[in-house]
Amino acid sequence: MANHMTPDEFRRHGHAVVDWIADYWSSLDQRPVLPTDPPGSVAARLPARPPERGEEFDRILADLETVVAPGVTHWQHPGYFGYFPANTSGPSVLGDLVSAGLGVQGMLWSTGPACTEVETVMLDWLAELLDLPDRFRSTGRGGGVIQDSASSATLVAVLVALHRAGGGRWREHGVERRHRIYTSTQGHSSIEKAARIAGLGDEAVRTVEVDPGTLAMDPAALRAAIGADRAAGLVPTAVVATIGTTSTTAVDPVPAIGEICQEYGVWLHVDAAYAGSAAICPELRYTHAGLSYADSYCFDPHKWLLTGFDCDAFWVADRAELIEALSILPEYLRNAATESGAVIDYRDWQVPLGRRFRSLKLWFVLRWYGAEGLRAHVRTGVALADRFAGWVRADERFEVVAPHPFSLVCFRLRAGTGTGDTGDPDGRDADVSGRDADVDRANAELLDRVNGTGRVYLTHTRVDERHTLRLAVGSPYTREEHVAEAWRLITEAATALPVRRS
Amino acid sequence: MANHMTPDEFRRHGHAVVDWIADYWSSLDQRPVLPTDPPGSVAARLPARPPERGEEFDRILADLETVVAPGVTHWQHPGYFGYFPANTSGPSVLGDLVSAGLGVQGMLWSTGPACTEVETVMLDWLAELLDLPDRFRSTGRGGGVIQDSASSATLVAVLVALHRAGGGRWREHGVERRHRIYTSTQGHSSIEKAARIAGLGDEAVRTVEVDPGTLAMDPAALRAAIGADRAAGLVPTAVVATIGTTSTTAVDPVPAIGEICQEYGVWLHVDAAYAGSAAICPELRYTHAGLSYADSYCFDPHKWLLTGFDCDAFWVADRAELIEALSILPEYLRNAATESGAVIDYRDWQVPLGRRFRSLKLWFVLRWYGAEGLRAHVRTGVALADRFAGWVRADERFEVVAPHPFSLVCFRLRAGTGTGDTGDPDGRDADVSGRDADVDRANAELLDRVNGTGRVYLTHTRVDERHTLRLAVGSPYTREEHVAEAWRLITEAATALPVRRS
Repeated sequence: MANHMTPDEFRRHGHAVVDWIADYWSSLDQRPVLPTDPPGSVAARLPARPPERGEEFDRILADLETVVAPGVTHWQHPGYFGYFPANTSGPSVLGDLVSAGLGVQGMLWSTGPACTEVETVMLDWLAELLDLPDRFRSTGRGGGVIQDSASSATLVAVLVALHRAGGGRWREHGVERRHRIYTSTQGHSSIEKAARIAGLGDEAVRTVEVDPGTLAMDPAALRAAIGADRAAGLVPTAVVATIGTTSTTAVDPVPAIGEICQEYGVWLHVDAAYAGSAAICPELRYTHAGLSYADSYCFDPHKWLLTGFDCDAFWVADRAELIEALSILPEYLRNAATESGAVIDYRDWQVPLGRRFRSLKLWFVLRWYGAEGLRAHVRTGVALADRFAGWVRADERFEVVAPHPFSLVCFRLRAGTGTGDTGDPDGRDADVSGRDADVDRANAELLDRVNGTGRVYLTHTRVDERHTLRLAVGSPYTREEHVAEAWRLITEAATALPVRRS
Repeated sequence: MANHMTPDEFRRHGHAVVDWIADYWSSLDQRPVLPTDPPGSVAARLPARPPERGEEFDRILADLETVVAPGVTHWQHPGYFGYFPANTSGPSVLGDLVSAGLGVQGMLWSTGPACTEVETVMLDWLAELLDLPDRFRSTGRGGGVIQDSASSATLVAVLVALHRAGGGRWREHGVERRHRIYTSTQGHSSIEKAARIAGLGDEAVRTVEVDPGTLAMDPAALRAAIGADRAAGLVPTAVVATIGTTSTTAVDPVPAIGEICQEYGVWLHVDAAYAGSAAICPELRYTHAGLSYADSYCFDPHKWLLTGFDCDAFWVADRAELIEALSILPEYLRNAATESGAVIDYRDWQVPLGRRFRSLKLWFVLRWYGAEGLRAHVRTGVALADRFAGWVRADERFEVVAPHPFSLVCFRLRAGTGTGDTGDPDGRDADVSGRDADVDRANAELLDRVNGTGRVYLTHTRVDERHTLRLAVGSPYTREEHVAEAWRLITEAATALPVRRS
C-alpha cells in the first residue's frame, strides 16, 4: 500500500503550510528582494537522486526555508518594482487551494460543469467591471476564457485570424506564408513567437513605427504597411494593438487602428496584458477607447488584479469562429452535453486539452475585494507611480522618458550625470554616440547598485535606443514608504557614481 | 486603501479552507461522482454582476458547498474510473499551495533561480525514477521541463522537429506545407491539433495502421507511409509514438519505430502521457523499450503519479535545438545570468512566456511518497485493473477487447447480450451491421445506467468500430471494494437491460 496522506494528516500539514505562507508574507520586507547566490546554488542543495523511502512532511517543509527560499526572487516583496507586477493575494491563493483540492480537469463541460460555468460567469463579471463591449459577453455571440498567459491569448488570436483569412483552408491544408501580422515596434515578443509557432516565421511580423513622443503606434504607418503588403501580394491578416506596452506602457490608438482593420478586413487583437486592470477605474477607461473594433481582447488579472499567475482573461467577439478553428472531436471525448450544443467545452478555446479550475481564484478575489477594493488597489498603484515620477522630475539629474498613465515609470540619468559629461542640450556634436554609451553605462551601473542593495528591484528597457530604468508598482504590500525608499536608494547611488572621463 | 487580506486573516481563512478540503476528501465516497444538474445550473446560482463591495470570507467559503460542489465532476472520487485518472494528493496540493504563496513567475532563471533549479533537478529525479536514457538528463546535452500538458509537449516537439527539418529557415520564413507527421490511428487528438497550430493543417498527419490485436502501430505500415510520402516529394518530419494510447493503452513498438526514424532522419517524439508513470516499476519498464531512439519524450505526473494537474514532464535529447527553435530575446528580458550562458531560461522551452513554480508540488510528492510509495500506488492500480479484467473474462456476457498492461480495462457486452441476439460466433451473416448497431446501443445504455447510479463513472471509446467501455483506475482513494462495486453495478445493469428484437 502506498503511504497516501490521510485527510487528517492533510489538515495538520495544511495548517502548517498556511502558517508558513503567512509568516513568509509577514517577513517579506526583511528579505532581500533578489537572491545573491550564483547559478547552481539551489540545485547543489538538493540530493542528486530521489529518495527511495518517503520522508516526514516536517522535514520537507523545513527545507523550504533552507533550500528554496534563499533562491527565490520575491515577486510579492513590497520593494519588487521589476517587469510588470505578477501579484497574488490571500483570496487568490485560497481560491487556488480549493481548485487544487477539488482536482477537477475541466476540458469539457461534462468533466467539470462548475469549472466551466463559473469561468463563463467570471469572464462576464470582468467584462462588466472593465465595461467591455457587449459583443464579448457570453450572453451574445462572444465569450471569455482563461488562458495561461497573454502569450497564449495572442497565439490563439493569430490562429483564429488565420482560420478566418484562410477561408476554411487553414484547418485542413495549413498556413500560407503570405499572411502578415502587424504590431508596433513596442509590441511584445509573444507576437513574434506566435507567428513563429503558427508557421508564418518571424518575417511575417511587421513592426510599425510609433510616435516618438508617446511610443504609441502610428496609424498612418500601419496603413502604409498594410497597403504596401497588399500591393506586394501579401495578405494582411491581424493587427495586435497594445494598451500598455511592456517597455513603457504606451497606449496604441485603438480607435484609429480599428478603423483601418475594419476597412481592410483585418483581425484586430488588443493586448492589454498589464494595463487592462486599469479599466476597472472609470477615470482610466479612456485608455480602452476603440474596443468595439476588436475581434479579440485580453488582459492579465495575474498582473495587476491580485490574482495569482496564471490567469489571463481572453475574449472573442465571435466564439463560433474560435471553436471552429480549434476543435477536434475524437470518440473518447464525445458526450451528450457536447452534442446537445448547449454547453461550452473550453478545450476548444485553447492550445492544450486539459484545464484547471482557475476561475475559483478569480471568484474569490472579485468577491473578497469587491469592485471598489480592486479600484482602490489600482488607484494606489497609479498614485504611487505619480508620486515617484514627480520626484524624478524634480531632480535635474534625471528625466522621465515616456508618459506614465498607469503604475510604471520609465526614467534615467540625463547625460552629464556621473558620466564625466556636462551635458549638451542639443546633443548634436560628433561625440554624441560615445557620450550616449557613457550615459547608458552610468544608468546600467546605477541599476546594478540599486538592485545590489537587496531592498528593491527595478528592471530596464531601451527608449530612444537608450538604457532606461523601469519602476513598476503593483504589490499589495507596497506603500509609499517603499517607493520613497527606492527613490532614496536611486539618488544615493547616483550621487556615488564615479565620474567618468570619456 | 484596498481591503487586502492580512497575513493573520490569511492564516485563519487558510486553516478553514484546508479543513474544507480535508472534509471534502473524506466525504467523496458519499457524493455522486457526476453532477446531475442540467447545463446552466451553476451559472444560475451566481449573481449576474460582480459585487460592488467586498464580502466576508466565510460567505465565500460557504458558497463552495451550495453553488459549486453540486456542479463538480469529482475527479478524485474513489468511483471515478473515467478517461485517464488526473489524480492529486495531499503533498501535491500543499506543494502547489506554497507555489501560490510564493507567487514566483519563473520565466527566466533570474526571475526565479529556485523555480528553475528545483525544476531541473526534479526532472532529473524523474528521469532516474523512470530509468530514462542519460541523454535526456540535464547533466548531458538534453534536459527536462514541465509543460502544462502532453498536448503542449507534442506541439513543442513538432515545432523543434520543423526547425530541424527546415534547416534554419523555419524560424524566419515559416513552415513549408510539405512536412508530414506520423502517428498511429490510435494517436491522441493533440497531434492533429499540434499540426494545425503549427500551420501544417490536419492533412499533414498520417495515421498509420495498427496491429488489429494489440492496436499498436504497425512499423511496416509506418515505413510504407514514409516511403510513399518521400516518393511524392513530401518531407517526413516527425513520428509521434505512443506508450499507452488514450483509447486502450496500446504500446507502440518504439524500438522498431525508432530504427525507422533513425534511418530516415525523422524526429521521434514518444508520448507516454498516462503510462509513463508505470516505468517507475521495473517490472513494467519493458513498455518503455526503445527510448534511446527518441528525440523527445513526455509523460504526465498529473495523470497517474499523484501530482495535481497541470504537470507534464517533457524531455529533449538536445536542449540547444529546442532553445534555438523557440527563443526570442527582447531588451526588457536581457539580464547578466542569461547572457552568461550558465543558466536555463525555461521560457524558451515552452509556448507561453510566464511560468509557475510547478516543480514544488513534484518535489513534495517525490519526497513524501519516496520511490517505493509511488511504485506501490502504480502497482495497486495495475492489480485492481487485473482483478477487474478477470471478473469481466469470467462472465460470458462480456469480453475484454484489448490488452491491459496498465490500469485501464476496455470491455463490452458481447453480441447476444441484451440485444435480442443469441450470438453468432463467426459474425459473417448479412445482418451483422444491424446487430453491431444493437450491441453498440446496448453497451451505450449499459454505460448510461451504470453512470446514472452516481456511484461510479466510466467513459467509452470505439474499438474495432464498436462501442466499448473503459474503466481506468488511479485515485488514491480507490480500493478493491470500489472496483468490485463498479463490477456489481455493471452486471446488475446488464441483467436489467431490456431484451431487444431487431
